[in-house]
This record gives sequence, C-alpha cells and structure tokens, in this order.
Amino acid sequence: MFDVTRYAIAAQSIVDAGRFLYDRGWSPATSSNYSARIDSDHVAITVSGRHKGQLAAGDVMVVDLNGNPVQSNCKSSAETLLHTVLYQVFPDAGAVLHTHSVKATVLSRLIPPGKSLELEGYELQKAFAGVNSHEGRLSIPVFDNTQDIPALAEQTAEWFRAHPEQPGYLIRGHGLYTWGATMADCLRHVEAFEFLFECELETMRVRP
Amino acid sequence: MFDVTRYAIAAQSIVDAGRFLYDRGWSPATSSNYSARIDSDHVAITVSGRHKGQLAAGDVMVVDLNGNPVQSNCKSSAETLLHTVLYQVFPDAGAVLHTHSVKATVLSRLIPPGKSLELEGYELQKAFAGVNSHEGRLSIPVFDNTQDIPALAEQTAEWFRAHPEQPGYLIRGHGLYTWGATMADCLRHVEAFEFLFECELETMRVRP
Amino acid sequence: MFDVTRYAIAAQSIVDAGRFLYDRGWSPATSSNYSARIDSDHVAITVSGRHKGQLAAGDVMVVDLNGNPVQSNCKSSAETLLHTVLYQVFPDAGAVLHTHSVKATVLSRLIPPGKSLELEGYELQKAFAGVNSHEGRLSIPVFDNTQDIPALAEQTAEWFRAHPEQPGYLIRGHGLYTWGATMADCLRHVEAFEFLFECELETMRVRP
Amino acid sequence: MFDVTRYAIAAQSIVDAGRFLYDRGWSPATSSNYSARIDSDHVAITVSGRHKGQLAAGDVMVVDLNGNPVQSNCKSSAETLLHTVLYQVFPDAGAVLHTHSVKATVLSRLIPPGKSLELEGYELQKAFAGVNSHEGRLSIPVFDNTQDIPALAEQTAEWFRAHPEQPGYLIRGHGLYTWGATMADCLRHVEAFEFLFECELETMRVRP
Repeated sequence: MFDVTRYAIAAQSIVDAGRFLYDRGWSPATSSNYSARIDSDHVAITVSGRHKGQLAAGDVMVVDLNGNPVQSNCKSSAETLLHTVLYQVFPDAGAVLHTHSVKATVLSRLIPPGKSLELEGYELQKAFAGVNSHEGRLSIPVFDNTQDIPALAEQTAEWFRAHPEQPGYLIRGHGLYTWGATMADCLRHVEAFEFLFECELETMRVRP
Repeated sequence: MFDVTRYAIAAQSIVDAGRFLYDRGWSPATSSNYSARIDSDHVAITVSGRHKGQLAAGDVMVVDLNGNPVQSNCKSSAETLLHTVLYQVFPDAGAVLHTHSVKATVLSRLIPPGKSLELEGYELQKAFAGVNSHEGRLSIPVFDNTQDIPALAEQTAEWFRAHPEQPGYLIRGHGLYTWGATMADCLRHVEAFEFLFECELETMRVRP
Repeated sequence: MFDVTRYAIAAQSIVDAGRFLYDRGWSPATSSNYSARIDSDHVAITVSGRHKGQLAAGDVMVVDLNGNPVQSNCKSSAETLLHTVLYQVFPDAGAVLHTHSVKATVLSRLIPPGKSLELEGYELQKAFAGVNSHEGRLSIPVFDNTQDIPALAEQTAEWFRAHPEQPGYLIRGHGLYTWGATMADCLRHVEAFEFLFECELETMRVRP
Repeated sequence: MFDVTRYAIAAQSIVDAGRFLYDRGWSPATSSNYSARIDSDHVAITVSGRHKGQLAAGDVMVVDLNGNPVQSNCKSSAETLLHTVLYQVFPDAGAVLHTHSVKATVLSRLIPPGKSLELEGYELQKAFAGVNSHEGRLSIPVFDNTQDIPALAEQTAEWFRAHPEQPGYLIRGHGLYTWGATMADCLRHVEAFEFLFECELETMRVRP
C-alpha cells in the first residue's frame, strides 16, 4: 500500500513534466514515458500510448519495482522495466525521464556500435548532480534498440551498477534515459543532455 | 444530406488542427489543406486560400467524395481531389492532412526521381497505426508536383491501392499527405513524419 | 492632411505585425522597420530604433511619400526612403515590411555580387500575389548594403520599375524588403520568403 | 547601505530578463547569471544555482563591487567577480548578462586559441551602443574556461581596460558576457550577439 498524497504529488510532477517536454519537441507523437518514485516499493508512471503534452490524472498509474500494476487495470508503458531497474540500482533516484528527441535519435545512430558518447570541456557538464568542473569527461553509453525490454533492462542495470557516476544513457534510434533525486533535478538533466547533444551535432554540422 | 452535428465536430477538429500545425510552422503563408470525414459520402474541408492559423467556422465547407461542394457557394481547396480519393481508397480514414513544411519540401526535392524516402531503424516508426517494431521499413513515395490535380489524384489512388500499408506520401517541392482513423491519429502521423524528416535531414547535414 | 481613422488602422496593423515578426525572430534587437499606406500621399511608419515586439501607439508616425514627417516631431526610420519609393513605384502597395532574419542575412551574403537569388520548383511560390504555378522562376535581387539610403532608394526604384513582377529584394548582410496590397498580403509574402530562404539554406547544408 | 527601491527595480529587471532569456533557450539547466547596478557601490545579482526561467524575489541578492554579500546570507553566483569587475571597468554599465547558449558554446570551441571572433559586414552590428555602420569590425575575445574565477576576472578586466570599445566576450565552452547602460540595452546586446553567432554558424554549415 502506498500513501495516496505522495502518489498525487508524483503524478502531478509527471503531468507537468510532460507539458514541458512535449512543448520542447522532446516527446512527440505519444513517444516517451516518465516516472516518479512514491516510496521504496512504488513508482508512479505514465500509462502506455498517451499524448505527453496532454497528460491528465487518468494517464498516470502505479507499479511496483518489478513493473507490476498496483491498484490499477491500466497497462503501463512497454518500457516500464527500464524505469524500475533504475530505481533499484539508484536508491536515491526520485524520478526517471525517457525522452525521444530528434537530436538524441540522430546522435545515437551516428555513434558506432560499442562506442559511447564522450562529452568534455563543456561548462554545462556541471548541470549534472555531482559534477563540479568542466574538466572531467562524461561517457554516455548507447545501447542497441530492441523490442525485448526485459533483456535491455537487465543490460542497463548491469552497466550502471558498474558505472554509477554516469548520468544517463541512449538507446540507438530511440532516445534518452536519465534520472535525478527529484523531478526538478531530472528535468535539469534532460535539459543539459539536450543542450550537449545539440552542441555535438552543431559541431559535426560545421566540421563534418 | 449530412448530419449537421457531425459536420460541426469535423469542422472544429480542422480549425483546431490548423492552429497546431500553423504554430509548428508546417502550414505557412496560406499553404496546406485539411479535411475530416462526416460520413460515407461527405467530407468537411478547408476553403481555398485561408490562413491556417486563423481558421474559423466560415473557413470550412462540405464536399462529396467526388470533390463537389455540398450546400455551399465556397470554393474548396484546389487539391480537394487529393483528399477525396484517399477517403475512397481507405474507408476507415477519418481525417486527411496536407502540410507544407520546409523539411518535407527540401527532402522531397533531394530524393531522386523514381526513388522513395526509405525510413528504418527508428523507434518512432511505431507512431504509425499498425507498426509495432522499429525493425521494419517504411517506403514513402514522392510524386512529382503538378498543377493537374485530377491526374495526380488518380496516380496516388492507384499507388495506395497497391501499397495500403504505407502511411503517407510526399509531393516534390510541395509537402506531405497523411491520414488516420481520427484527427488525433492523423496529427500523430504528421508529428511522426516531421520528426523523421528532421532526423533524415540532420543526418545528411552532419554526413553530407 | 490625412484621415485620422485610416492612420489609426494603419498604425494598428504595424503594431500587430511587429509582435508577429519579432516573435518569429525576424526583427531582433530593434532592427527592421514597417509601414502601411494611409492614402495616396501619406504612410504610417515605425519611429527609429524601437523594439519591434513591443510597439505601441507612440512608436508609429506619419511621413509623406518623400519621407518627410507629417504632424510629428519624431524621427522616422533611417530607411524611410526605401519604403516611400516602393509606394511610388507600386500605386497598389498598401504595406511594406523590412525584416532582418538570420536566414536573409546569411543567404544575402552567400550570393555572389551581381547575382540574384533564383527560386524555382517550389509550390510555395504561389503564395506571392500573381503567381499561379510552381513552374515559374523568381529572381530576387541582392543590393549591396550602404549607409547612403537615398542612393539605395533610387537604385531599388529603378530596378523595380524595370521588374515589377518580382515580389521583394534583399540587402546584403541586412535583410528583406517586400510589400503587398494589404498588410495581410505583405505578411504572407514575408512568411513565404522566410520559408524559401530556409529551404535554400537547408539544401546548401546537406549538399554543401 | 543602498536604496531599497533601487534594489527592487534592479531585481525585477533581472527576474524579467531571466524569463526572456530562458524562453529563448539561452540559459538552460540553471546555467547563466545576471546582474543590475543599484548604485556606485552595489549590484543586484542572481543567487547561485537557480532556475533562470523561474526567478522570483528570493533568487536575487546584493553584493558590493568586490563581490561580497550585503545584507544577505545567500551565496551569489560562483562567477560574481566576472560581473563586478565589469562594473568597475565600465562606470556607465547598468546591467551585465552572462548567457549560455548552444551557439556561444559551439562557436567559442571552434575558434582557435589566441584568436578572436571577428564580425564584419553585418547591419546588425549597429545594435551595439556606439556602432553606427556595418562597415566596421568587431573583435570579440574568447577566454579559456577555468574554475579559477578571480584569475579570469582579472584577465577580463585587463583586456577591456585596453579594448573598451568591444561590447562583450566569450568563455570557451561556456558562454557570453555582455553589458549595457540599461537592462534593455544589455538585452539588445544579447539578442544581437546571438543573431551574429547564428549567422556565423549558419555560414560555416553551408560552407564547411
């Protein structure tokens, strides 16, 4: 059983995030899915296939950390397990956002298999929790896309247990996953990633 | 004779679509035209030459499936037949949108005559009705532009009778046609196409 | 003496145009100037140096067709004569807009001296008054920038007396001039030009 | 001691600037910092780490021209000294804005060490206070990024004492600093810089 007020607050943070992310063009055409932690065992998450710029109370449901619906007959996002494993790996994670921008899509397709997206020398790296200087380097992994979500969930969990200092990952041709202690932190991470993706692509445009 | 309430609902969906599509920059300078099915014989469609971001009740009229005005002295879009043949070919189509974006225009001019726009490996292909995986391939035909609309209407009808699984087409230097069971489905298709057009162009920008 | 109601309507059309054009990013940093005809001898025009997204009643004044202030102590735009000669050359012109977008600036600098911007095969050419097909060609002249506005005014007047069918011109590194029978027509021409500029630049980006 | 009404007006100009700059995408992810002069000894400045699109009264504080907090327990921006030295070097400066756009970031990384960003032939150069023609040339210095702010503050102060006619500077991979007699002037400078950065990058995109 979860606290209903905590659920309502988590759900509202998801609805508000959807409006912001859709307006930026990062969650088009019913793509993307979002979640926010209610407590150690429960997560609020978007119902499958909803318009992310028009989310309302009925578009958010509850799942446990194994991805099973709790007190709901709705079907959660097909990618629910990609969210729940992150809450398992990161006990401090309070929100997980999966977005689906043109830039994340294109960049993830341009990076060769087996390579990460390497980011360094950007002041905005400091937008990520725990990063205090532009002098470090971020290595953002790119996982191959698949419709086998349990397998991908396990793959990401294993990778982040080994690399907990990295703030997110890409799925090839598909988009970004990132998280944060609060929804505000998580949204700041999305903004920072999108900024850095655009910087990388703009650099490639003028220096192809 | 058509049901007036059904007409009013169809017309409102067109007015609302116009505001969305114009704000995105996909229907500039009185370009584009939109329609929504009223019943098996009637379609609501934009009057010729109107500002698509400022549509009001007087900017939508009714035509039959041969493109003839019904209970109206207005002149419908010059491209009315491109709409009506789609309602004939696809009995389940409830809405048809023709948009006119920079990306559709440029991409359609870059594709060599006789070639289609091939889209594959994008998760967002799943935004199209009936597509369940990123692993398939979409082949979007590009028809040469012409001011002879009846001939083009016939050409598109013939093509889609043979390829009903494809969700839309381009006219060279002119724009996109797509459809859906409902206006919401059709708008999702426009969003997905524009996303994929931008992905293709962005890839060409950085890998010219 | 001019009709005050006609002045007020012209001034309002300028204020509204400013909000639209600034929001699109086509009149940044107090650049640009706009005018609307009051009668055969008088034109409402923006006062020099005002923020185009925040125009109010006090930011529009009246000049005669020689560019002299009428019933005003304000200083009109430094480029006033570029407007007034167009009203002289085109008796049917009801509005003139000069915008200052990144695309017009960059494209005008890329076109070699003595060459025009050639536009053909675009359906959107039909957005210009008097154009009925995508099959024609527009030749948009590019004049060198100068701070000697009377000389440039004379140069443009001479050119358009010889080529009245062309709907606008560029000044190198500076921006676009276009006009129309009404402010709505003129705004449609700006939108069409900006669309076509973006198409040309996008094509150059992917086929450098 | 400073005049409280002057503080309140300065703080409001910062809050309003934040909303504008964030909406344009020039201050993402809690980046950027802004200040406005209260009097010859005091400056209102943003508190460290706040969301620039959501600034409110509690997000602005007062510092003296050595960067020390006045009547406040808050921590001002880590880059406070970069602001205060500009008020020392330019007694007429009424506002300083540091923004953090993709374009400033990418362009500053593309310019070779020791080189400036050279801008010439743009009509919009006239948007900078004191520039009356497109025929001059602006040389915008690019300083290497560092987390040692006192050293960078001294470096910029020395440079602008020698080159007071230049309207701003870049920090590599980090962003823009510019100033103006009023906040409106300073915002106009940001707009002009962003316009010119985009022009430069667009030119490089199509002529790589």
